Amino acid sequence: MISFENDYLEGAHEQVLKRLVETNRIQAAGYGFDDFSAQAADKIRETIQCPDATIRFLVGGTQTNQVVINSMLKSYEGVISADTGHVAVHEGGAIEFSGHKVLAIPSSEGKISAEGVEAYLDTFYSDFKREHMVFPGMVYISHPTEYGTLYTKDELKSLAKVCKKHEIPLFMDGARLGYGLMSENTDVTIKDVANYCDIFYIGGTKIGALCGEAIVFTKNNEPKNFTTIIKHHGALLAKGRLTGIQFLELFTDDLYFKISKHAIDMAKKVKKGFLDKGYQLYFDSPTNQQFFVISNDKIKELEQKVKFAIWEKYDDNHRVVRFATSWATTEENVEELLKLI
Amino acid sequence: MISFENDYLEGAHEQVLKRLVETNRIQAAGYGFDDFSAQAADKIRETIQCPDATIRFLVGGTQTNQVVINSMLKSYEGVISADTGHVAVHEGGAIEFSGHKVLAIPSSEGKISAEGVEAYLDTFYSDFKREHMVFPGMVYISHPTEYGTLYTKDELKSLAKVCKKHEIPLFMDGARLGYGLMSENTDVTIKDVANYCDIFYIGGTKIGALCGEAIVFTKNNEPKNFTTIIKHHGALLAKGRLTGIQFLELFTDDLYFKISKHAIDMAKKVKKGFLDKGYQLYFDSPTNQQFFVISNDKIKELEQKVKFAIWEKYDDNHRVVRFATSWATTEENVEELLKLI
Amino acid sequence: MISFENDYLEGAHEQVLKRLVETNRIQAAGYGFDDFSAQAADKIRETIQCPDATIRFLVGGTQTNQVVINSMLKSYEGVISADTGHVAVHEGGAIEFSGHKVLAIPSSEGKISAEGVEAYLDTFYSDFKREHMVFPGMVYISHPTEYGTLYTKDELKSLAKVCKKHEIPLFMDGARLGYGLMSENTDVTIKDVANYCDIFYIGGTKIGALCGEAIVFTKNNEPKNFTTIIKHHGALLAKGRLTGIQFLELFTDDLYFKISKHAIDMAKKVKKGFLDKGYQLYFDSPTNQQFFVISNDKIKELEQKVKFAIWEKYDDNHRVVRFATSWATTEENVEELLKLI
Amino acid sequence: MISFENDYLEGAHEQVLKRLVETNRIQAAGYGFDDFSAQAADKIRETIQCPDATIRFLVGGTQTNQVVINSMLKSYEGVISADTGHVAVHEGGAIEFSGHKVLAIPSSEGKISAEGVEAYLDTFYSDFKREHMVFPGMVYISHPTEYGTLYTKDELKSLAKVCKKHEIPLFMDGARLGYGLMSENTDVTIKDVANYCDIFYIGGTKIGALCGEAIVFTKNNEPKNFTTIIKHHGALLAKGRLTGIQFLELFTDDLYFKISKHAIDMAKKVKKGFLDKGYQLYFDSPTNQQFFVISNDKIKELEQKVKFAIWEKYDDNHRVVRFATSWATTEENVEELLKLI
Repeated sequence: MISFENDYLEGAHEQVLKRLVETNRIQAAGYGFDDFSAQAADKIRETIQCPDATIRFLVGGTQTNQVVINSMLKSYEGVISADTGHVAVHEGGAIEFSGHKVLAIPSSEGKISAEGVEAYLDTFYSDFKREHMVFPGMVYISHPTEYGTLYTKDELKSLAKVCKKHEIPLFMDGARLGYGLMSENTDVTIKDVANYCDIFYIGGTKIGALCGEAIVFTKNNEPKNFTTIIKHHGALLAKGRLTGIQFLELFTDDLYFKISKHAIDMAKKVKKGFLDKGYQLYFDSPTNQQFFVISNDKIKELEQKVKFAIWEKYDDNHRVVRFATSWATTEENVEELLKLI
Repeated sequence: MISFENDYLEGAHEQVLKRLVETNRIQAAGYGFDDFSAQAADKIRETIQCPDATIRFLVGGTQTNQVVINSMLKSYEGVISADTGHVAVHEGGAIEFSGHKVLAIPSSEGKISAEGVEAYLDTFYSDFKREHMVFPGMVYISHPTEYGTLYTKDELKSLAKVCKKHEIPLFMDGARLGYGLMSENTDVTIKDVANYCDIFYIGGTKIGALCGEAIVFTKNNEPKNFTTIIKHHGALLAKGRLTGIQFLELFTDDLYFKISKHAIDMAKKVKKGFLDKGYQLYFDSPTNQQFFVISNDKIKELEQKVKFAIWEKYDDNHRVVRFATSWATTEENVEELLKLI
Repeated sequence: MISFENDYLEGAHEQVLKRLVETNRIQAAGYGFDDFSAQAADKIRETIQCPDATIRFLVGGTQTNQVVINSMLKSYEGVISADTGHVAVHEGGAIEFSGHKVLAIPSSEGKISAEGVEAYLDTFYSDFKREHMVFPGMVYISHPTEYGTLYTKDELKSLAKVCKKHEIPLFMDGARLGYGLMSENTDVTIKDVANYCDIFYIGGTKIGALCGEAIVFTKNNEPKNFTTIIKHHGALLAKGRLTGIQFLELFTDDLYFKISKHAIDMAKKVKKGFLDKGYQLYFDSPTNQQFFVISNDKIKELEQKVKFAIWEKYDDNHRVVRFATSWATTEENVEELLKLI
Repeated sequence: MISFENDYLEGAHEQVLKRLVETNRIQAAGYGFDDFSAQAADKIRETIQCPDATIRFLVGGTQTNQVVINSMLKSYEGVISADTGHVAVHEGGAIEFSGHKVLAIPSSEGKISAEGVEAYLDTFYSDFKREHMVFPGMVYISHPTEYGTLYTKDELKSLAKVCKKHEIPLFMDGARLGYGLMSENTDVTIKDVANYCDIFYIGGTKIGALCGEAIVFTKNNEPKNFTTIIKHHGALLAKGRLTGIQFLELFTDDLYFKISKHAIDMAKKVKKGFLDKGYQLYFDSPTNQQFFVISNDKIKELEQKVKFAIWEKYDDNHRVVRFATSWATTEENVEELLKLI
């Protein structure tokens, strides 16, 4: 059965695999101190035009969020996040496990606003009991969000401004960053991301890699002894080459962006197909995740023929479902899907 | 300046102090294994008519919440609490510091409902992504709540029922338990508390003691090696006698209840006095904390003459303020307050 | 039965109790922001002649060690301690519970040496795998040690020097500090302690108080937002007055030192009594804890008449036992003990 | 320059890579619930003849140790380990980071003995202060050890016996398990490992895989909700297929054992070559890590021509160095090495 359940259904992009095969017997240093990782970091620095950035490669998204947040926050600080944010809902409490509260604030279509953050900070700093509360020490956003939506350049700028004013870093979870950057509806470039965010990560797992996320510390702000911090989180890959080689290939000849673009093209086809048949969008997502409101009966019928993700209850008779495309989605599968619905 | 800022302004009830003085030179075993603590536990067991209960004495409320919650939860579990609950807002992230998420749910006047808990649990258990979420492993309520309100016997019964159904413990934070039990508007007895809750604590710090809270494990459910758990939390008092003697006195001849009653009497006077002068109640609290909506100008004026707590913003021109009475509040001070307003 | 089992058998020194009684009805601010605590801090600053020191009062020793160590260390750091140190052995893993390794190094009679610390640091910093190891981030010593022994001024100076060289703080656990300072065999004054240590604490629980330890940050080095840090450890006393008043009295008219001296006098009598009867010292402790090697048979006999602490196995027929005196030990009890042995 | 620095210098065994390539476009479920992982688990269960075992695939060794130890221990427990054990020394404090003390006991050539464990447990359980100490809750061994040495079947049996007697699990770190099983000097089979250990893991990173370790819970003892536990450790791979496919190939047609055997053959050549030239063994390691005592001058000379690992200081003029072979070591490289020395 074909699947649109998520964007990590297949292995890696063939060029990435090829690079792994070609380099397989080259002996390389361990723990991320290999030449491949160094070259990949150079490529990323060049792409984001941020020569002072330091780059580290971890394996997965939750791990990356935990390591970044825990290493940047003081013990008495928490991280501000959309109440629908991945760190707030779907990481099994990984942030709390490392000792920090997620300070969930109201969101709209997965996004938080500079005003919302400012209001939270103002309320906090004017509260006479604030010493008994968790200090807001960072702002976390995902881009695209968990609902496939995107921040505009102005929104990012405003978030960066409020963070700067309050001297707390802005951290972007870019698990699907490529899909955001290649959306037709965005005015945000990766240079903007590097400019406005203090830390962000470039997701590989969902965009062409077997595994791997590239953390970018944009402002010469990598925590001291970060290798040991990664290690005690159990997140230090012995064969750092594995992520290094993959990101080296992904950032050679814009592969990362080209394959991200493909996912967007496929998503547009999916969206058009559903709309043409009268389905209702839940959010008008400009990226690779498409959310539709479908009746429970129709869902039951569709589940026999194609895999997708049940997202949440809409009303007693309908649910929100997600169809995700990716770098690996084929035109054939999209066509088959559109026949099925 | 007289103060109604909180309910821990003075030292200890004179009888408690007297008992400390009288027993001062009696040599006693350390770490809570002294005879005073054993006798105090007996008195409490008798009072709650729960012969199998085990009782432990800790120093303060946040500490007690942290130790109880952390020792009862599995690593993948969090605690359900009112979004206004003490553990959710005013413990500096003590629960998260020990690795657990506080699962805040909507509340009304500081209270959560069995329906609210049930809805949360149902949504959780029907979520296909629940393995990526924090499991609800306990329900936390405070009684009186942070807003001075009280659960009814029926409400407690319903909460206990939903907890039992889902096999998670019900934990009551009784930092001000005496003030709740002595309210005129309650049908809840301490035996009911022991009956419906799996764990609760009897607050001493705010009711007659220098410090000290008595944890009651009502259902033979004290975690194994609890002494060591208390120890690694840094919460094991070398001179366990300090809390033991105080609770022994508090639970001799109903002292705990008598002095709690006094606070309620004083609170009634305060409430009547404010209402008589046309002040607006924020909540109609039946316990020792009284919340009024007062204009910012009036607040400025009052602050010159009496201490009280600014609780939160009401609107641009008004704030919610709290006046708290306690076992130690004198009639004279109440009268003086009523003259001032 | 009389007891020499430890130095926390009784309540508080009568003057301390009296002060608690006298001040009982004075209303005071919560959480350590009361005037008593401020005055106590002033007294301590004056005593140690360290006008810039900041002082905080916590409840107990393990709690204090955990809060200080956890708040001063980075996440990737551990604390160097004697392998017999309290934090290494007898705190139920409180340091590890807060995320840090205790880096135990060899000790002699409870003490570590500057050479030992230096050797550890040198080995660490020359290890090519050090990024995979826990960074030494602090040196912890207890004075008196767990075996009642004392550092000399020169030894403290050397430890401070090696710490300074490697830019890590020196932290002294002074749970029994008074007993060390009042020993006849010491050249260390409390001003020396303040001079050589970056942080130390003055133990109250074992010297005249019901509970309480005074943390002294000697070098303007209190961690930012320390109140919130104390809070999320569950260590913030609502009635901070309890520790404030006690330390205020202890540091009025040298009470702390006078009552410490008494314990030393009693210990000397105990030691002389045992030696006169031919008992063997384990260590020649100059403070209030006296360790003897006693045959198992004799121990069995003595246990019928007096309480003391079994420390450890010496050989198949002997064990090391500890007799502790304190500010509360009476001449009568010492005389009775000496008759019994 | 050729390298014998460690056993994770190259990518993956070519057959493993081939399988990754062949299966690349097959859509598979996420988070380890894919068919490849299920088939790999079946293969492993068959190999170890333990039909009730549950198997989970994580990414790396430190991560695996942290997740297993933290999920099996109670909060008040620590893990007994050789003082030279990986968890005790070289994981950046990952065990302490998750809240548990490593209870280091003396070792010989990297190994601990049943007698040593028994002695530790007996001392602990006879200590009258044991409630103030960390409870021993698990025994951790590595096989081969960090020094390449191996337990005998009798030694494992004895360790298992003492663990069973004290009702604590025996956990084997098998980061290099294949190299141990294929040693000529062992009487231990993988079935013995499964029989004697409660939990063990089969190392893939060092034996043929790009990354990956297979945890085996041998006695129906996988912790409840283990997926969520893995998740909150940041250790849940979105593309669980990555480890599943690799282990499926490694446990098809005994590939894991065949390539392990190759490393042993290469190690024997290395050892013989060094011995023939008069070098001194540090330990007589029967596995893929070979330790020699070499003069500092000779080391300096060799470092120009070949990479290897400086292990530790032997004396002022000598150091212990390690030469590691692996599944990927070529005969050519070994011959070149032997020419160089």
